[in-house]
Amino acid sequence: MRSAARPARGQSREDLTHIAIDCFARYGYQATSIDRIAKAAGVTKGALYYHFKDKEELLFEAVKNRVGQFERRVLGDVAPIHSAAAALRNLGRMCVDHATKSNHRRLIVTLMVESLDTNPRLATHFKAMMHRFREFLRQLIRQGQERGEFRVDRDAALAAEVYAGAIMGAEIQHYQDPREFDLAATIDAFVDQFVAWLAAPSRNGAPAHRTTRTRRT
Amino acid sequence: MRSAARPARGQSREDLTHIAIDCFARYGYQATSIDRIAKAAGVTKGALYYHFKDKEELLFEAVKNRVGQFERRVLGDVAPIHSAAAALRNLGRMCVDHATKSNHRRLIVTLMVESLDTNPRLATHFKAMMHRFREFLRQLIRQGQERGEFRVDRDAALAAEVYAGAIMGAEIQHYQDPREFDLAATIDAFVDQFVAWLAAPSRNGAPAHRTTRTRRT
Repeated sequence: MRSAARPARGQSREDLTHIAIDCFARYGYQATSIDRIAKAAGVTKGALYYHFKDKEELLFEAVKNRVGQFERRVLGDVAPIHSAAAALRNLGRMCVDHATKSNHRRLIVTLMVESLDTNPRLATHFKAMMHRFREFLRQLIRQGQERGEFRVDRDAALAAEVYAGAIMGAEIQHYQDPREFDLAATIDAFVDQFVAWLAAPSRNGAPAHRTTRTRRT
Repeated sequence: MRSAARPARGQSREDLTHIAIDCFARYGYQATSIDRIAKAAGVTKGALYYHFKDKEELLFEAVKNRVGQFERRVLGDVAPIHSAAAALRNLGRMCVDHATKSNHRRLIVTLMVESLDTNPRLATHFKAMMHRFREFLRQLIRQGQERGEFRVDRDAALAAEVYAGAIMGAEIQHYQDPREFDLAATIDAFVDQFVAWLAAPSRNGAPAHRTTRTRRT
């Protein structure tokens, strides 16, 4: 059994991915050595190599872990709401929360773009992640359509692509200029227009679901 | 005069930036040596070093040049149109065109994200570029508001942030999955909802400017 060789007082494989992603987010992937992660985790380099073949595998597992966490939070917090519009708003706020309260999400988004040219394995993983995110959105929008909350003549898959892109593009602008670019206000404004575009008209011709926009202060 | 030392039959500084950006876009920045660019340009390495201190300066100048070209095209083609909604549509199409007909724009967008962590000088340049793009959009939207085409109660600066982000996020999804992700359809759908959200209501309560969406085939 492989675990027989495992260091007795070492951190778990999952703990190590948490510590690694913290280091990558703080110092950048290139500038983070296995040595630095081992020191941060209080384990030997041997203990790290016991769990991960190399730095790239550690990055891959750390990203997988972090993305999985976000996806579980989305599934847990967004799905149960009984209004697709409210769910889309809630999801937008959750993305703002992730983007502004820790530097992990910034790492994920920048790695996603960097990996396009430098790391095919990671790029494939990110492509699948974005696919899952859009599929989640598409189902949410379809539910709104089935419930009569949203117009049925909007293409739910296309709408999902617009939503995913608007969130990502707003985030990148925020990372570029965190002090000046108000991510929450931008995402709120986007979700407002998105929901208004999807909303089924009420009997008097106005949208059935009023949308409001407030600039957060 | 510096030009006294310039190689007689060499390419111009601007020609060299065009050739360099082609190489960077094709092979990636890391994998492109000064030697490779010199060979592609048919000049000696010395001729390149005459114009540029190092590869980083060549990248910087090449990016500046390419971004300048796009900005001049935007100013020339978008501004004269006598409808802000049409200008926003036209700009969206122009972005699709740039993103799909050459690999330079993909290079610019990926470099913009990569530089956040690796190249402060380039990151500052990209930050200023995005600022100019949003300012151009803000003015376009303000013109629509002054003309009565758009609602005056929409925040033009915020709207510009949403537009710039939606385009960028759609592009990144397209670069991730060029065969499956239909960039033109996504950007068209976004611009439709954006313009509908901005549009001033006509006297009977419906938007004054009807928006249409067609999925490009």
